Amino acid sequence: MGFTHFNDAGRAYMVEVSDKDDSRRTAVAKGRIEMGAETVEMIKEGVVKKGDVLSVSQIAGIMGAKKTSDLIPMCHNIPLTGADISFELPESGLEIRAEVKTVGKTGVEMEALTAVSITALTIYDMCKAVDKAMVIKEIALLKKTGGKSGDFIRGEGDERDS
Amino acid sequence: MGFTHFNDAGRAYMVEVSDKDDSRRTAVAKGRIEMGAETVEMIKEGVVKKGDVLSVSQIAGIMGAKKTSDLIPMCHNIPLTGADISFELPESGLEIRAEVKTVGKTGVEMEALTAVSITALTIYDMCKAVDKAMVIKEIALLKKTGGKSGDFIRGEGDERDS
Amino acid sequence: MGFTHFNDAGRAYMVEVSDKDDSRRTAVAKGRIEMGAETVEMIKEGVVKKGDVLSVSQIAGIMGAKKTSDLIPMCHNIPLTGADISFELPESGLEIRAEVKTVGKTGVEMEALTAVSITALTIYDMCKAVDKAMVIKEIALLKKTGGKSGDFIRGEGDERDS
Amino acid sequence: MGFTHFNDAGRAYMVEVSDKDDSRRTAVAKGRIEMGAETVEMIKEGVVKKGDVLSVSQIAGIMGAKKTSDLIPMCHNIPLTGADISFELPESGLEIRAEVKTVGKTGVEMEALTAVSITALTIYDMCKAVDKAMVIKEIALLKKTGGKSGDFIRGEGDERDS
Amino acid sequence: MGFTHFNDAGRAYMVEVSDKDDSRRTAVAKGRIEMGAETVEMIKEGVVKKGDVLSVSQIAGIMGAKKTSDLIPMCHNIPLTGADISFELPESGLEIRAEVKTVGKTGVEMEALTAVSITALTIYDMCKAVDKAMVIKEIALLKKTGGKSGDFIRGEGDERDS
Amino acid sequence: MGFTHFNDAGRAYMVEVSDKDDSRRTAVAKGRIEMGAETVEMIKEGVVKKGDVLSVSQIAGIMGAKKTSDLIPMCHNIPLTGADISFELPESGLEIRAEVKTVGKTGVEMEALTAVSITALTIYDMCKAVDKAMVIKEIALLKKTGGKSGDFIRGEGDERDS
Repeated sequence: MGFTHFNDAGRAYMVEVSDKDDSRRTAVAKGRIEMGAETVEMIKEGVVKKGDVLSVSQIAGIMGAKKTSDLIPMCHNIPLTGADISFELPESGLEIRAEVKTVGKTGVEMEALTAVSITALTIYDMCKAVDKAMVIKEIALLKKTGGKSGDFIRGEGDERDS
Repeated sequence: MGFTHFNDAGRAYMVEVSDKDDSRRTAVAKGRIEMGAETVEMIKEGVVKKGDVLSVSQIAGIMGAKKTSDLIPMCHNIPLTGADISFELPESGLEIRAEVKTVGKTGVEMEALTAVSITALTIYDMCKAVDKAMVIKEIALLKKTGGKSGDFIRGEGDERDS
Repeated sequence: MGFTHFNDAGRAYMVEVSDKDDSRRTAVAKGRIEMGAETVEMIKEGVVKKGDVLSVSQIAGIMGAKKTSDLIPMCHNIPLTGADISFELPESGLEIRAEVKTVGKTGVEMEALTAVSITALTIYDMCKAVDKAMVIKEIALLKKTGGKSGDFIRGEGDERDS
Repeated sequence: MGFTHFNDAGRAYMVEVSDKDDSRRTAVAKGRIEMGAETVEMIKEGVVKKGDVLSVSQIAGIMGAKKTSDLIPMCHNIPLTGADISFELPESGLEIRAEVKTVGKTGVEMEALTAVSITALTIYDMCKAVDKAMVIKEIALLKKTGGKSGDFIRGEGDERDS
Repeated sequence: MGFTHFNDAGRAYMVEVSDKDDSRRTAVAKGRIEMGAETVEMIKEGVVKKGDVLSVSQIAGIMGAKKTSDLIPMCHNIPLTGADISFELPESGLEIRAEVKTVGKTGVEMEALTAVSITALTIYDMCKAVDKAMVIKEIALLKKTGGKSGDFIRGEGDERDS
Repeated sequence: MGFTHFNDAGRAYMVEVSDKDDSRRTAVAKGRIEMGAETVEMIKEGVVKKGDVLSVSQIAGIMGAKKTSDLIPMCHNIPLTGADISFELPESGLEIRAEVKTVGKTGVEMEALTAVSITALTIYDMCKAVDKAMVIKEIALLKKTGGKSGDFIRGEGDERDS
């Protein structure tokens, strides 16, 4: 088994998927930002009062999902049929979860991972005046369904420490 | 000290920097992808032979740096005066380092962090056929120089565990 | 009946349309720019002689229709199957009409309205050296066909004063 | 006085501004969306509770300001030094005000007008499930300062009915 | 037979293809860059050692193919199902060949020609420090298959001197 | 003398120009499209009557100049201070000339060459229904002024056969 994104000359190319059937596909990714407890507190206050960091970041994440094929060189450009981002705010930081859907010939793993990444970067941007030491952590694919290659569910045999 | 990206009505806005002087600014960010030892091995082989994953990813990272203000809602659009990405390949994964420069009114932390993120996402994309369980980890700002707010160097007082 | 673009947590998301059938859809929007009679005259002269403001604006409008999902955060990115813009030039200003088509899972109202808006903004840009007081007016959806939610035709019961 | 955006052959071109000095420039634009009283009410409730239409729209407006030169064919691409959007919610609809700043060789009227337009389009998108008959109205430049051509303030001599 | 991209008013528009069936389509385009023998030599050395001009250029070409509808005003935006670029390096220069595929309602000639053009421009950019006199030559469509209008194969009757 | 766009590890990077002074810079590029005499004739008729191919193409070219840094991976993103495109229509085809200006730290050769290329591709797109065998030819830099590396004028010593 080898890399699929290189042609016979060893150059990257956009893999041909013309023969694949359209099918319903989902991908779920997650990530985490570690930040100071007081930064977490400020974000929580903003959500209920003024200055909602999460709202800006989640909009950026959804717009980022739509830009995936413009950012990742060998990614197919495909119409998405849904995208949603959710947050959890434990004391040590912020957890991001993105779910992206399509009906098409290729999966949307990269769209989900890009949504999480852009959401995390935007949180960093919105909070960096108070906490430059934040760390973006553990961006990983949780689940992928649809397509011929079979489903992937994190933790079923091939997981790393995340 | 509070979030700077919200106006009096609590809505996000692009902070005014009209009065700031142009100054030379640098930002360095880093990140890491954890992957299977065999994936690391395949990447190493590709660099010397065929199918250079790092080459594709680092080009994506530099192009990503230029798209930062299009991705991060409240980021200023500024001309960059330099961008460079480097890699290290220890056994457990891949380390990414991005350095971005400008001469302008705002810093380029977000550009450096975006460069690392897009590079990491592209590595994931290029390798996902062999390893879907890769985890993007520890994306953080290492250094920031220039501008009135003073330099930031990771590990000098305000670091988190990264 | 409530807003459809928010998830249970009250955050905006891209509505899932995976289950919808592909269908032929059209949307027609209109808008108007009020301008001085002499500006109207200059535009008219340009069309027959030199300096065709309408030509630049209508190209911008069609390109704008294709960028809709990049501009409107929760809009689905969909392939368009047609876009056309037309003008009328009464004495008091300029009337713009855009018609956009697709075969897909969501409507193209936003694409038609965006086409009209970008066309109007470009007319403003091309004419602003002679008339900064122009006003963009009455951008509205005229008609929408296709899809399960039924057709919309302006003036059939739910119209406002436009 | 004639159109400035056409060359001797009558073709549109990007006006040369190489010789202009950099100067501080501001532009303020406004617009209005007419909507049903119950839609206004739903927006107001969302702001304090769940589903903040204004938050999504204002983020889109600021991102739109940064895309102006990509949307308006003859617009110069310039770094912005600030952008802010505010709202008022009288009973009959929604009023949008955008203020954009730069230090550069050309004005930012188009950026302010584009910010208002994209904000208005996003409001339409977020509310269209409950009110398709909304009308975007009275998008106009309120003020422009900086640059050699002098300031423009709406209502000082050359205003139209807006 | 006339131009198809203009409406009855003589204005360019995006041709309606709603009624066309989705079909498998391919387009192959080529181009050439004439350059000094020593530049050719430097490129060849870079491929085997360090500084791979072709790798950067081919990635740019594939990303350019995906941006075609954003660059060519009346082009339909369509999901691509494959894109590949290859090179030959005779002594007098560099030959580029791009193949693009889709399953859709319109052909991908423009995507293949754009891929070749952006690849060539990037080669120019990467080599211009050593050879500013390079000439991009003979960008042409070689083949087009799929769709109702029949296949096109260069050299079968309607060729020019290329 | 070697390629300047690669770092010590042999990876492409955006060359640092932080230390360069801002200076006035111009670049002029040209290109040619070979086409059937009847296609030339149709274009000429369109200019005076209906269906102006050149108008669409030149707008695309100017918009393309602004997108250069988004298309060419190692190109710096810089504000342009002017862009103009002109045409000549000899019997054998169409000649395109683009002039781009900036006041900045890097030259605009790539912007001028990109403007010519996108203009040529758009002409191909607009005419391809009547002539698929058109060939884009002889895209080359004619002149470059400004910056420390000295001016370049085609035909002064280092020209190729163009």
